[in-house]
Amino acid sequence: MLSKNGEISISVIKRIPRYYRFLEILMNEGVTKISSNELAARMSTTASQIRQDLNCFGCFGMQGYGYNIKQLHSEIGKILNVNKISKMVLIGAGNLGHAIASHMDFKSRGFSLIGIFDKDPDLIGKEINGMTITSMDELDAFCKKNTPKSAIICVPYSAAPEIVKILIENKVKGFWNFSHYNIMKDYPNTVVENVHLSDSLMTLSYQMKK
Amino acid sequence: MLSKNGEISISVIKRIPRYYRFLEILMNEGVTKISSNELAARMSTTASQIRQDLNCFGCFGMQGYGYNIKQLHSEIGKILNVNKISKMVLIGAGNLGHAIASHMDFKSRGFSLIGIFDKDPDLIGKEINGMTITSMDELDAFCKKNTPKSAIICVPYSAAPEIVKILIENKVKGFWNFSHYNIMKDYPNTVVENVHLSDSLMTLSYQMKK
Repeated sequence: MLSKNGEISISVIKRIPRYYRFLEILMNEGVTKISSNELAARMSTTASQIRQDLNCFGCFGMQGYGYNIKQLHSEIGKILNVNKISKMVLIGAGNLGHAIASHMDFKSRGFSLIGIFDKDPDLIGKEINGMTITSMDELDAFCKKNTPKSAIICVPYSAAPEIVKILIENKVKGFWNFSHYNIMKDYPNTVVENVHLSDSLMTLSYQMKK
Repeated sequence: MLSKNGEISISVIKRIPRYYRFLEILMNEGVTKISSNELAARMSTTASQIRQDLNCFGCFGMQGYGYNIKQLHSEIGKILNVNKISKMVLIGAGNLGHAIASHMDFKSRGFSLIGIFDKDPDLIGKEINGMTITSMDELDAFCKKNTPKSAIICVPYSAAPEIVKILIENKVKGFWNFSHYNIMKDYPNTVVENVHLSDSLMTLSYQMKK
């Protein structure tokens, strides 16, 4: 759905990575083409929703043929801008930060992880996926030299505001925020993608017990 | 917003844990009462949205006083059913599973983690937070004996269907799903809360680069 100024609505944007993910799975399975009906069944959605979303981006299936999976995957990748790699730092190398650094395929999602920072002396100097954990004291100087554009915030709530301040001063504009600090409140002009695992777990609790 | 059959809409449900989280932060800061305006500012939302959501649950602030934070927190906790503890198992003790097991406060979110399973011989027998990682081969027998009601799925896509099948056969009905397996497609009567970190990262990529 395009808004008045030609921008794509946030609800569509939130769905697009899901298409990308399902198309990847299909490619890995060796499937080369798929109809909107088949794709809808795989994704537990409707064919009309898929056609509507993909039409937004100018991705049209061929009548009687469906979508060419590789081509559609590539088109959506361009929309998501995953080919344009942006420099990112990870703040907080505790359990969760460590898991994210080792688990995620940053490159295929449009990012390059260029630094990992922690204040814990037991962690500083250790390696995650070949990258050495650096002292938080060096964050400012590192940013000035290497100009990361985004940061993953994996520190407790109490530590987050001070770190985000340093990052903002160094022109970091995107945050993948796992902390409970409401970055948008203090910095409304940043781009923030929050991941609140405890909210997700409580939603499950509610839905299971109702 | 109540739907026709008196159920609360999914969009409200998704917002409720967020209130719970902000109220926790306020309690930790020693704040005892708050107006809907102040709470709205903290949460980057509107006072009218807050009043509307909380009215749904019969939580009314007092005119000229606002909300009693401790009381509201307790009320929302009851709605989320976090006091009713439900047994949960974790499948997959790799980096992400390990992080979730050590990072999350399950009890305060309505769950009790009673077992951790993996198929990796290097992990079996090791401990996470005092709980021993058990072989996947024992999952079926464990479930029959201990009757967990929900499971965290932290295994790769290819391994997920077989594991979910065992869990479903053992009457597990809730899934906190970190894998890319679409559980709802095969088991539409389950409760699934998906966490797709790569989707979240791609959303950040899109929003930063547009």
